[in-house]
Amino acid sequence: MNSFGNIFRLTTFGESHGRALGGVVDGMPAGIAVDIDFIQQELDRRRPGQSLLVSPRKEGDRVEILSGLFEGRSTGTPIGFVVYNQNQDSSDYEHLKACYRPSHADFTYAVKYGIRDYRGGGRSSARETLSRCVAGALAKLALRELGIEVCAYTSQVGPIALSGGYADYDLSRREENSVRCPDPETAQRMMDLISEVKAAGDTIGGVVTGVIRGVPAGLGEPVFNKLHADLGAAMLGINAVKGFEYGMGFDGVQYRGSQMNDSFRMEGGRVVTATNHSGGVQGGISNGQDIYFRVAFKPVPTLLQELSTIDEKGNPVIVKPRGRHDPCVLPRAVPVVEAMAAMVVLDHYLMNKTKHL
Amino acid sequence: MNSFGNIFRLTTFGESHGRALGGVVDGMPAGIAVDIDFIQQELDRRRPGQSLLVSPRKEGDRVEILSGLFEGRSTGTPIGFVVYNQNQDSSDYEHLKACYRPSHADFTYAVKYGIRDYRGGGRSSARETLSRCVAGALAKLALRELGIEVCAYTSQVGPIALSGGYADYDLSRREENSVRCPDPETAQRMMDLISEVKAAGDTIGGVVTGVIRGVPAGLGEPVFNKLHADLGAAMLGINAVKGFEYGMGFDGVQYRGSQMNDSFRMEGGRVVTATNHSGGVQGGISNGQDIYFRVAFKPVPTLLQELSTIDEKGNPVIVKPRGRHDPCVLPRAVPVVEAMAAMVVLDHYLMNKTKHL
Amino acid sequence: MNSFGNIFRLTTFGESHGRALGGVVDGMPAGIAVDIDFIQQELDRRRPGQSLLVSPRKEGDRVEILSGLFEGRSTGTPIGFVVYNQNQDSSDYEHLKACYRPSHADFTYAVKYGIRDYRGGGRSSARETLSRCVAGALAKLALRELGIEVCAYTSQVGPIALSGGYADYDLSRREENSVRCPDPETAQRMMDLISEVKAAGDTIGGVVTGVIRGVPAGLGEPVFNKLHADLGAAMLGINAVKGFEYGMGFDGVQYRGSQMNDSFRMEGGRVVTATNHSGGVQGGISNGQDIYFRVAFKPVPTLLQELSTIDEKGNPVIVKPRGRHDPCVLPRAVPVVEAMAAMVVLDHYLMNKTKHL
Amino acid sequence: MNSFGNIFRLTTFGESHGRALGGVVDGMPAGIAVDIDFIQQELDRRRPGQSLLVSPRKEGDRVEILSGLFEGRSTGTPIGFVVYNQNQDSSDYEHLKACYRPSHADFTYAVKYGIRDYRGGGRSSARETLSRCVAGALAKLALRELGIEVCAYTSQVGPIALSGGYADYDLSRREENSVRCPDPETAQRMMDLISEVKAAGDTIGGVVTGVIRGVPAGLGEPVFNKLHADLGAAMLGINAVKGFEYGMGFDGVQYRGSQMNDSFRMEGGRVVTATNHSGGVQGGISNGQDIYFRVAFKPVPTLLQELSTIDEKGNPVIVKPRGRHDPCVLPRAVPVVEAMAAMVVLDHYLMNKTKHL
Repeated sequence: MNSFGNIFRLTTFGESHGRALGGVVDGMPAGIAVDIDFIQQELDRRRPGQSLLVSPRKEGDRVEILSGLFEGRSTGTPIGFVVYNQNQDSSDYEHLKACYRPSHADFTYAVKYGIRDYRGGGRSSARETLSRCVAGALAKLALRELGIEVCAYTSQVGPIALSGGYADYDLSRREENSVRCPDPETAQRMMDLISEVKAAGDTIGGVVTGVIRGVPAGLGEPVFNKLHADLGAAMLGINAVKGFEYGMGFDGVQYRGSQMNDSFRMEGGRVVTATNHSGGVQGGISNGQDIYFRVAFKPVPTLLQELSTIDEKGNPVIVKPRGRHDPCVLPRAVPVVEAMAAMVVLDHYLMNKTKHL
Repeated sequence: MNSFGNIFRLTTFGESHGRALGGVVDGMPAGIAVDIDFIQQELDRRRPGQSLLVSPRKEGDRVEILSGLFEGRSTGTPIGFVVYNQNQDSSDYEHLKACYRPSHADFTYAVKYGIRDYRGGGRSSARETLSRCVAGALAKLALRELGIEVCAYTSQVGPIALSGGYADYDLSRREENSVRCPDPETAQRMMDLISEVKAAGDTIGGVVTGVIRGVPAGLGEPVFNKLHADLGAAMLGINAVKGFEYGMGFDGVQYRGSQMNDSFRMEGGRVVTATNHSGGVQGGISNGQDIYFRVAFKPVPTLLQELSTIDEKGNPVIVKPRGRHDPCVLPRAVPVVEAMAAMVVLDHYLMNKTKHL
Repeated sequence: MNSFGNIFRLTTFGESHGRALGGVVDGMPAGIAVDIDFIQQELDRRRPGQSLLVSPRKEGDRVEILSGLFEGRSTGTPIGFVVYNQNQDSSDYEHLKACYRPSHADFTYAVKYGIRDYRGGGRSSARETLSRCVAGALAKLALRELGIEVCAYTSQVGPIALSGGYADYDLSRREENSVRCPDPETAQRMMDLISEVKAAGDTIGGVVTGVIRGVPAGLGEPVFNKLHADLGAAMLGINAVKGFEYGMGFDGVQYRGSQMNDSFRMEGGRVVTATNHSGGVQGGISNGQDIYFRVAFKPVPTLLQELSTIDEKGNPVIVKPRGRHDPCVLPRAVPVVEAMAAMVVLDHYLMNKTKHL
Repeated sequence: MNSFGNIFRLTTFGESHGRALGGVVDGMPAGIAVDIDFIQQELDRRRPGQSLLVSPRKEGDRVEILSGLFEGRSTGTPIGFVVYNQNQDSSDYEHLKACYRPSHADFTYAVKYGIRDYRGGGRSSARETLSRCVAGALAKLALRELGIEVCAYTSQVGPIALSGGYADYDLSRREENSVRCPDPETAQRMMDLISEVKAAGDTIGGVVTGVIRGVPAGLGEPVFNKLHADLGAAMLGINAVKGFEYGMGFDGVQYRGSQMNDSFRMEGGRVVTATNHSGGVQGGISNGQDIYFRVAFKPVPTLLQELSTIDEKGNPVIVKPRGRHDPCVLPRAVPVVEAMAAMVVLDHYLMNKTKHL
């Protein structure tokens, strides 16, 4: 089960220190102009080594598109792509080979499969998400033709949180700093905190906020594949995510219905709502308002400190991870959140076309 | 897309005021003893009219199993079931027929399908979840043979929240009060609040906490169908849910990795963790510890008050809902949360059997 | 895996002598006028007891639609339906309870599930196909709005075969005789043969030919879900089917490419082919010409004769089936072939809508 | 929809003259020893240029495995693979660019997608089947551990057919001649015919027979995904296939049930059948006997002759294909039939594991 989506469907493969990672995008609509530079740029946004805040692993991460395009356009056939690993040196992981790092997937993979590729976490590495960025970039290119825009940003790192909502910032500015927060002042405090955490060999969590604008009313399956349920599953499928909420979210539970209802009215011949506590989705179906959501990322467990754990035989051991790790995954998670959201929206857009003859 | 699950798979049908609701459970393992009384009891837990806190709609909600059983055991063939609606009187909805209730699915269904059954919300009614309780009860019967137990309870109503975690209470006591909170004193305060809200013609939200005990290590697909991602999608697919978190959840984002790591150790020949911030899942795969999660329910939008909205033509109108509504959905949502969780775990248990020859 | 189709998707349940059979149709496009009398008529075409040539089992087979319709139209929500078994008397099967009838599914079900409902074959009974006729009728109603017509007829019974192809007959005449062959003279010979076979307590096989007219060019997935591959899987999923061919079929293998090519030309502004050896499908995708195919049905194994076999313990036994059986399934298979074909075409029509934004 | 299978699932990508072809195998059981040389050998069996009877296209067709293996064994994670096209020179196709070759997929792709890669048929080329051979080889390696063997051979070319059934020949000898027929004398006559047809710039069809030995009783879903239905869909998804039959097939329709029944008996403590008209499948589920089937391949439409057709604007044109084509696809189709059959059986083996707790 390494596929995601129903009509627009991504299947990924690859391990952190194997030969290559990549995937197949099935269901890309035909005739879309595909800008390969844009895909590479999206991929570059999650590349290691792009700033001092993230893993210094040296990888060019060049995507090679193998099929599905002809004369610059999608043909409707599957788009295969591959990113070769340049850095396959796994010597940093030799000493972890026989032990289970705390809060990592080492133990659970070993139990599940009876065999595991211990090098850099193997398949459990967040490096797998590069394939999602490629597929997300393709989805974005299609959504762009529909006037739909997907945007995410870092809204909290540790205890440092933006005070405003998504509409209070110029989100295009998020790319101006390496933590991807649209408010420069808050961004600086976040970066300072990450630097401090990094210096301590520790890690820190945070929240990414996502916004989708321009979604027409009517997208989403009303029962099990509600638009927000598919968005939630998409986000919870990203490494290190511990929670998802949309619209009023967890905060909304303490209010009364009379405080949270979004009343309808007409505006410019179009149905709009006076407020948007619903987060753009009602009954699982988009209502044409902005969709916004928040995704909680835990502090990742790879500390550059001595950790006590057990080995494969159950003996207590002390490990000290080396290698290249992110003190905070938020900056590199932002493009992954966008990619997953773009795939979900495009998939629902295409599914919705089947509701009528 | 009215199906849920991969191997153990539920497909539902039915509308609030139509002839009947029901479904088909495909993939029930063969040879499981099926106690029909237990299924009915589970269904009774979400029935309207069971207390003064919930909708007074008069429905016996008798489930009729139509297939898939033989001499008291599952045969491995699909289990069809139906619950006939006794109360099909939709006169309470006639006056809402042409207008869009705020924060309801009326508008989005109309846009999506171009036609909608306005009676009691039609397909968008939470009445659809009775089919999930039937399927969940079947899943529970199978899980019981594996020693896996699924349990949920109301942990918050409006601002009133339990102060402890799931391990601080005797969860079996949740059924002793009508709000399904395991702490009698907190339960009373929750019930008082709901009564007050009800008297005001208003509604209130809350949080349901779920716990799954006895899950063996190894369940969950590591990438897109992580165990917690499928749980999250299951919960987000329940009416009125706005958020899902598991393990350390949103709170965990402010801590450092060194504070949140769950170190492994051996206990009675078994790998356990010293703490459980991970919530029983690592890398998307169960690690054998308790799985716990929280689900946010909004205050539902059906107020017994005058509401200003628009009709199908865009004209402003005032509606005043009548009919039978829940001032707080939490008490009746608890069995639905359990049902969905049970289905997810059984489905993953069965999928996991395919990982080896 | 009791579901069929991708977008237009049928899930069935029910056993021959259980409480009821039925199913859920998911993905019916919204807004289609649904004529319930037509659905019942389609179901009546496969009902037992309709002539002396088929099983005399007494069943009214009344379909009850439980959801998904509103004011005579499909709403886009799932259509649940049920057909209660009137005749649940299974005493004719008591003596077969512990033994494996030759060429039946008794043995294979017992091995697969470890438990089986022996009454009338349980789930393996062709009675399950009544659910397909209901779903097929719904599909036909949608296809009718697109000008697509699905038609099948008996073209061979034992050695008696029609000499012409589908275009040589007025297919509407197939319903004028109980064997459903459009040529009255051949039909009479077929019926005489079936009567003779029946008198001998034996059974006989045959071929059903299917024709689909009005399919626009462009339907079908080009690789694994070729239009003809999905049609083939649909037909091979009908009880007693042993083979499927379309267009030139098995006969075509002895010819040369130069004899079998279908050259293109324009006719009335439309691309047509001079011949149609391709059977309306090229590269897995419809080309706008008639689609035609042939389905081989074996002589069913339930003979009213003494049969030597083994019981569940492996002891040799002699069984003599009683009960109500068809000496030739062809007449009642014709509507099932039509139903399955209609579902496949509608499903592909809807899938094809997703190929472009 | 470029994926095949449920648990063991292949997704393919790639065009005839694009950068590369390849795919992802998801669901390979963990811990299987993977012999990469064997995979390459299987791929070599369908390579062009291996004899004078087949297309002389120069392609090394080296498969590169990119993921999913560790220290020689499958890890349970997806196996990505790629085969780069060496020969991307498409100049032989320039003159066909704007016209629709008769009985090819040129026209149907153009209608479906509005854009097509005309070079060598693009995605519609049988070159796509190389990915199936890779996946099939992986499936064979898993099946080998279960004692299941899949074998196919050419049983008919044009009018020249083997007189015996599969049990009358030593099938291992099929690889001794380039037409892959196990009877040397018949093979010679087939090869002579193909040479004659080739010299005439023409093509010829034929039949491939498949045999699967060692399948345990119990595999197959009883209703829609009958074992033989999935086999049929697999075969009908291979380029140029026009028909599929198993067991008694089309021939069986003329016999009576009393002639075709397979009576059960015990042999060495195991249930066997006296005859095997059923072809190893009863009620859609394997019964432990040999599974055998026949697949009809049409004479492919690419003739090295002048052909009259139309161009994209509907104007009549004469085309004369050049390039590298097979006068008869049977020899290279044999490994593809085996590959598809192996995938189906392994997939059903794994699905069957989910029928019990």
